Order: sequence, then structure tokens, then C-alpha cells
Amino acid sequence: MSVAPRWVEAINKALSHPDNKGKVIYQVATVDARNVPHVRSQVHRAFMHPEGRPDLPLLVTSTDARSPKVAQVRANQRVELAWWMEGSQDQFRLSGFVRIFPSASAPGDSSSTPIPAGAVAFKTLEEQGFDWDAKRVEVYNSMSPGMRASWCSPHPPGSALASTDEQRSWPSKVPSEPESEEDRKNAETAQNNFALMLFEPIEVDWAALGVLPNRRTVFTRDGDKWNEQTVVP
Amino acid sequence: MSVAPRWVEAINKALSHPDNKGKVIYQVATVDARNVPHVRSQVHRAFMHPEGRPDLPLLVTSTDARSPKVAQVRANQRVELAWWMEGSQDQFRLSGFVRIFPSASAPGDSSSTPIPAGAVAFKTLEEQGFDWDAKRVEVYNSMSPGMRASWCSPHPPGSALASTDEQRSWPSKVPSEPESEEDRKNAETAQNNFALMLFEPIEVDWAALGVLPNRRTVFTRDGDKWNEQTVVP
Repeated sequence: MSVAPRWVEAINKALSHPDNKGKVIYQVATVDARNVPHVRSQVHRAFMHPEGRPDLPLLVTSTDARSPKVAQVRANQRVELAWWMEGSQDQFRLSGFVRIFPSASAPGDSSSTPIPAGAVAFKTLEEQGFDWDAKRVEVYNSMSPGMRASWCSPHPPGSALASTDEQRSWPSKVPSEPESEEDRKNAETAQNNFALMLFEPIEVDWAALGVLPNRRTVFTRDGDKWNEQTVVP
Repeated sequence: MSVAPRWVEAINKALSHPDNKGKVIYQVATVDARNVPHVRSQVHRAFMHPEGRPDLPLLVTSTDARSPKVAQVRANQRVELAWWMEGSQDQFRLSGFVRIFPSASAPGDSSSTPIPAGAVAFKTLEEQGFDWDAKRVEVYNSMSPGMRASWCSPHPPGSALASTDEQRSWPSKVPSEPESEEDRKNAETAQNNFALMLFEPIEVDWAALGVLPNRRTVFTRDGDKWNEQTVVP
């Protein structure tokens, strides 16, 4: 019987620590085609796993399909993220593969990124006939009207902005119950730009710096089990 | 007359925000020789700049000379860091070059990493005859006895640890005023393993998410000035 690796429990326990309230932001590192690293903050939305396979956890996050990180991931699907829980002084570093699932109506390349070699969780989900776009829409639907508006900008994130006046004319809210033709149009734009980003860790490095002596454990996926090694902090 | 770029002022202002108290930790992304990204939390120690050149700021941080990140930086000195100031909802992403300055008595490769092409701040400091090792010792001396002990482990950070019992026999404090022969030996070990890590940004991306509408500005170094471009958040 497959069970969740101990690091998932450790992350959930750290997240439930009262001093870590709201610590759902981690920093995701990617590499671009010229071998230059990039890193930015993203919001952890949830864990998920293939049916019957809690030993193959994935992390759910999202992006604007027009964001530079999508092109970076298309060039190199290896990613590492650092999750610092300041309250309990726990650092989780997760290394693995990422996939991007844009809308079929996304601007630019609307294909999802392939299943990387060794990405057993992604492969298992695919074999189980997982509906990636239904998941994308489900995550989109859980977003606030203000967040949804952020995927409505007429120009890609990071592109030059002529003036903040121009920006003030963009929608600041995309309500889930549209009240006008404009709301409906904005909701369609936001949903088309919204892409699902799923992350499959194959190695997790947990440094517990809130205890003395500090503890550090490296979890490595090996077939259908996770090996654990205590290491020097 | 050379002046500090506006992003340094923005970071210092964010750091002085009461809700950002203690937000001196950022996540540093590197790339290893196999093109795999890595990212971990590090402590911001200070800004510095070549004499008379506040337009060429560097960030001061440190590492254990035996840490895997040192080998990664030796393979690729391009680095990006993400600095999330949760209280004010400001994200600063800084991209540029890093150099490592180990002790002359460091285990393994004790040479400092070269000056990367385009790293004008590092080049200017070198031309000014900057004493890198004096800076390394100065930063080491500002560290707490508990932090110093972390550079005393007989095995490199991240290497396998046979038992936590073994770890309990390692020093937990290295006092600045040694009281015994053991203290003196530990201080020498710690100082030999302690390496200075300096970071020279050439591009800074500041997203101010605590204001409506959100503001995002990209600062790019161009010769001896910093260009500013307002971009889509």
C-alpha cells in the first residue's frame, strides 16, 4: 500500500505551525536557454497525487501563459524551489520537474510541455487519463476576482508599459459572476491566459533550523520508495 | 558625481518598513555544471560599493567553502536572487554575477573565483586594491558564536551524517574570546571554512504588490548609469 513520503507530512506540519501562518509562498528557480538562472516567488495552491499513489506527490501552482518563465520551462523542465518557513525556521528545497498546461486558447504556444524522462508522477497521471484542463479550470475558479484581473493585462507580464495611466484603464476585478458584457470578456481573457504549473519533486532537502542541534534530512525518490538520509546541516 | 541606483533606496526603504522586520533572507539561484538549477535561502549582511562608486552596489553574503553551491558558482558565476518582503508585499529580483572568496587555508580549492566579463563593480574594487580577505575576516567577526559553530562541522554541509549522536559532540558555540585550547582550534577551523560571497547585480526587477494598481520597475545597468523601465506587473 503506497503512502505519502514523510516530507509531505513535514511541510504540512510546518504550514500548520501558528508562526508560519500564510507561508504559502516559495521561490522557484528555472534556467533559461542561455544557461542563466532565474528565480521568483510563487504561491503554493495545493498538493495532489495520482489516484492511489500518495507516494508520488505534486505541487500545484500557476502562471500567466505569456510569462517569460514559460519559455524557460519549455527550454528546460528541471526546476528547484526553496520554501522558507520563517516562523519555525524550516527550509524545504524541492528539486524535480515542472510541466505547464496552458489553455487551448492561450496566446502563443498553447501546447502543454512534454512528460520529462523519469517523471513517474506525470506519467502515471497521464496513464490514468487525468483531465489536465479540468484541473486548470478548477484552480482558476478558486482564484479571487483581484487575482483573476492580473491575467487580463493586454500586454505580457514584464513587457514595457507606456504609462501607469494606461494601466489604470485595465480591469482591477474579474468577478466570478459576470454582471456585464465586459466582465464576460475579461473572464474569457483571464482564463485563456491562466496556465496550470505542476511540479514533481524527485529530491527534497529539509533543514530544520528551529531545533538544536539543527537537523537536515535529504529524501530521494528511488523507484516507488523515498530514501531518507540524515546529512550535515 | 556617482549616485546609488534608486533600487538600493527601494530595498532599504522596504527593509525599514515595520512589517518587514528581520526580512534579511533571500533565495539565491545557481546553475550546476549539468544545467540543473539550485536555490537556497541566504542571509543579506550588507550593501557595499567601490570607493566613490555608489552606482556600483554589491550585496554581501557568505557561505561554507565546502558547500555544493561553491562548486556550482565555480562552474557558472551567473546568479539570480529573489527577495520577498512579505510585510510590504515587495519582491526584488536581482540578476548578476557572484564571486566567492575562501580563506587561503580553506579545504579544497582556496582560490577566489575570477572577475566575470562585464562585472564592473568587481573590476573596480580590484583596481582600487580592495582587500578581499580583510573583508572576509570582518564579516566573519560580526557573526554570533552559534553561527560560527556551523562552520566547524568536521564534514561538509550536505554530506551524510552517521548519527545525530555524532553531531552532538560538535561545538555549538565558537566564542569570539576563546577560553580554551579547544575554543582556539574551533575558531581556526570555522574561519578557514568561512567564505565571503559577493553579488554584483546588473538587472533588478522590483514588483510592488502592496500598492494598487501594482507597480513593477526593471532597472538595467548600462555603462555607468541605471536605466529604469516601468513594466506590466
